[in-house]
Amino acid sequence: MKRWSLATAVLLVCTQAAFAQERVDLDMTAKIRQEAFARSQVMKTLDHLTDVIGPRLTLSPSMLEANRWTRSKFTEWGMANVHDEAIDDLGRSWAFTDASVEMLSPRAMPLHALPKAWTPGTTGPVEGEAIFAKIESKADLEKWKGKLRGKIVFTDDLRAYKPNEKSDFQRHDHDSLEELISYPLADDRKTDPAMIARFRARMELAPLINQYLVDEGVVATVSISSWNDGIVRVMGGGSRKAGESAGVPSLVMMAEHYNTVMRALERKEPVKLRLAVDAKFLSDNNQAGYNTIAEIPGSGPQRDEVVMLGAHMDSWHAGSGANDNGAGVAVMMEAMRILKAVGAKPNRTIRVALWTGEEQGLIGSQEYVKQHIGKFEEPKDPEQKALPAFLRPSKGKLIRGQDYGKVSVYFNLDNGSGKIRGIYAQENLAVAPIFAEWLKPWNDVGATIVTQRNTGSTDHISFDAVGVPGFQFVQDQLDYFSHVHHTDLDVQDHAVEADLKQASAIVASFVYNAATRPQKLPRKPFVEN
Amino acid sequence: MKRWSLATAVLLVCTQAAFAQERVDLDMTAKIRQEAFARSQVMKTLDHLTDVIGPRLTLSPSMLEANRWTRSKFTEWGMANVHDEAIDDLGRSWAFTDASVEMLSPRAMPLHALPKAWTPGTTGPVEGEAIFAKIESKADLEKWKGKLRGKIVFTDDLRAYKPNEKSDFQRHDHDSLEELISYPLADDRKTDPAMIARFRARMELAPLINQYLVDEGVVATVSISSWNDGIVRVMGGGSRKAGESAGVPSLVMMAEHYNTVMRALERKEPVKLRLAVDAKFLSDNNQAGYNTIAEIPGSGPQRDEVVMLGAHMDSWHAGSGANDNGAGVAVMMEAMRILKAVGAKPNRTIRVALWTGEEQGLIGSQEYVKQHIGKFEEPKDPEQKALPAFLRPSKGKLIRGQDYGKVSVYFNLDNGSGKIRGIYAQENLAVAPIFAEWLKPWNDVGATIVTQRNTGSTDHISFDAVGVPGFQFVQDQLDYFSHVHHTDLDVQDHAVEADLKQASAIVASFVYNAATRPQKLPRKPFVEN
Repeated sequence: MKRWSLATAVLLVCTQAAFAQERVDLDMTAKIRQEAFARSQVMKTLDHLTDVIGPRLTLSPSMLEANRWTRSKFTEWGMANVHDEAIDDLGRSWAFTDASVEMLSPRAMPLHALPKAWTPGTTGPVEGEAIFAKIESKADLEKWKGKLRGKIVFTDDLRAYKPNEKSDFQRHDHDSLEELISYPLADDRKTDPAMIARFRARMELAPLINQYLVDEGVVATVSISSWNDGIVRVMGGGSRKAGESAGVPSLVMMAEHYNTVMRALERKEPVKLRLAVDAKFLSDNNQAGYNTIAEIPGSGPQRDEVVMLGAHMDSWHAGSGANDNGAGVAVMMEAMRILKAVGAKPNRTIRVALWTGEEQGLIGSQEYVKQHIGKFEEPKDPEQKALPAFLRPSKGKLIRGQDYGKVSVYFNLDNGSGKIRGIYAQENLAVAPIFAEWLKPWNDVGATIVTQRNTGSTDHISFDAVGVPGFQFVQDQLDYFSHVHHTDLDVQDHAVEADLKQASAIVASFVYNAATRPQKLPRKPFVEN
Repeated sequence: MKRWSLATAVLLVCTQAAFAQERVDLDMTAKIRQEAFARSQVMKTLDHLTDVIGPRLTLSPSMLEANRWTRSKFTEWGMANVHDEAIDDLGRSWAFTDASVEMLSPRAMPLHALPKAWTPGTTGPVEGEAIFAKIESKADLEKWKGKLRGKIVFTDDLRAYKPNEKSDFQRHDHDSLEELISYPLADDRKTDPAMIARFRARMELAPLINQYLVDEGVVATVSISSWNDGIVRVMGGGSRKAGESAGVPSLVMMAEHYNTVMRALERKEPVKLRLAVDAKFLSDNNQAGYNTIAEIPGSGPQRDEVVMLGAHMDSWHAGSGANDNGAGVAVMMEAMRILKAVGAKPNRTIRVALWTGEEQGLIGSQEYVKQHIGKFEEPKDPEQKALPAFLRPSKGKLIRGQDYGKVSVYFNLDNGSGKIRGIYAQENLAVAPIFAEWLKPWNDVGATIVTQRNTGSTDHISFDAVGVPGFQFVQDQLDYFSHVHHTDLDVQDHAVEADLKQASAIVASFVYNAATRPQKLPRKPFVEN
């Protein structure tokens, strides 16, 4: 009983001491809040990015226009050091303007489908008979040889409809936030040799299949949308890279229409389709893609140190990339605008980065980190070298870049337009009480939790991987994973204005706090190899 | 205390007496159940109706094919008196095969839209500038005169996205069924003179607007889909009737794309569109539409009496009319098949009717009732005559037809593919304990309630209106009012097989019970005028 009391007392003292050190400038926080809530421009920014510029596929003319326009806005808002940084040889530029598919027989009906990025278009309308053929192995290449000429190949099984028993629109509640705070211990994720073998086989097969489809005279391929209810969820196909076969025109069709064709084939009815895909490669050679960078220079003794924030500006092409990730870009830009508008004079330099190539594997942020912060030595074994980094048994030795010690933190936003409910601390225990303190002025707008969970799959990982603190915020899910993620519904209508204002305010204040506190943010233990 | 006990005792005796009279043949019910659950053909029927025949717009070639095919199935299954009954001069036949809309500027993107039924197509692709113009009054006709030539008119306001906080897929639970049993007393629905005036004005204006759009050289009109999330919900426009202007090509566009165009117009950006609508009228003159009828003749003393069941076979054209109302048709056909398969020898004649023209105002069933059962005297006042029946202050005198006394009951199904949870008794108090008894063998598959609520808007109303018992079953809603009702998603995928089997069994048993019980079903008080 006594020991317990003592321990509690010690804990309380220590906690209070830690919190006492973390002073939040509430006067500046109030200014940020007012600017964000009462004079927001976040929707105006999102409107321009998504409706005026449109979808921003990596390397596309729209993505280049987005680089240009965001630079102009940063300059207009008084940012310094506004520039693009090139990622050379990123791939070929591709764009599409229209696609239509029509069933001609056994009965006439329009079929709703959109092309996969980096696949060729048709020269006007083409017709062909539908055939179901799954080509997933070298044996399949043999099996179908000579049987696909002039055909439109349906590549997936019919998928039965499964209704969603929950709402398509989700916000966190007390219970789900509590759940998110708990840290689930998982088994070690071993690098499974079978997984590596499968990955290698797939990597090897993909270009073979593309060339095979061309050689066999296939008219087009059609896949089923991975979501139902008429939503077309479509990413890339073919190949981005010059010199590789981009295959044949490849479309993703809404599930209900895909299944309609499949049922006709199952009934042995000949299905004739007409399709026209207005899509093309705009360059024969690999082009550079660009990250857009801007700064509010630090004016204190730590002006050489950097606090970063960012979001990926590239998107898929079916919608207008409003929630993935126009929302993140608009919020990060708005946070910068707010900081300027409230006259913030940060000690450290604040740097925003709008990434390209995130959808192709965090390419923009990874290249940035390699260039400025640190990179792992390339493996000498060519087999290891051919594998993506996450499949290599060893990361290799870290070669630190010039900014390695200078970057205090990187904040990312990339889970749609839902408001911020907290932050993933990525097992950085020392940073948690700091973030908890920073969140307090935002508790009344729903941002409350710090979780030690690791969240992945977006650009903060590029920083986290080299041991530099990189964080992603916890957001309300809204209809991100039911309607908009990589779909034709990812348009401005599905973005929630109030949520974006809230997120802009919180990001601005986090960045401000990081740029003005006496020390850089603590780093978690970093183990090389 | 004593009085209460007495009352309870009396109630119990009376209730038991009533129930005791209502004998259900459980042997036959078990046969029906087994045939419906273990040897169902309901999905095969639905598949043919929706995938092979396709959508069945009233008067369209597909609807005629559905009349032909259902006759052939009824004949194959051994039904008697299989025939079609014509509704003359129903309107012109119309069909569409494809529609595509493309935004050419300010940026290129495909826009998802489908034509309203009974509106003209285009001759190949046409281009025009989008303009926002609401034409809802004679003053609007003047206001826009000379300003719409060559334009594509967007006719609705931009509509902000509202997320659905509930699941898109709903089943009844204990509470919602309890709620449905309670009868809500409403204020008298008076025939409001202002409503009549508005209706008259709208009726008068519609053909004027159609002709005006033609005269003014409008390229096409575009309306916003009434549902979000990419769903195209589209019914009729133009005019079904020969001699009336069908206006110009008229499309319904998915809300997210409609709003995209509207926001561009709000930014004063010129929006240029290209559209091609492959739609046309297949007849210049009004044609007949058809109800398909078939019977299992009665073999008992009441063989001249009739028990009817039915569902409307016509559908809208965007999907394949699977849930509205392929499901109802498939269930009613399956109920007939089951009764034949189990060797039912009904006392009364069982007659199934598959209606046309329901979507245009219950036309098929109304005409059937007029022809065979009863009709109200037409008003002599031409003003009254011009009004639809539901807006006339008096129904007029009922002229009873030859089947008026012979039809015991009509059962209808028209709320999607959801399983049966009970039945609407339409304030027929005497029928309620009978139905409650009939439901007992089906309690274990979820059919439990009898509610005195009136449900409307489909073909049982044509019977109910003349005082002949007409009932519609209570069904689980599923995604009927979130995804499929009058939309491009109304396809077979969204129909639930297990639910259709359950409904087929229950309908077959209700029909059998009605056709074999000693008396016709009781009628509720019928007040003429």
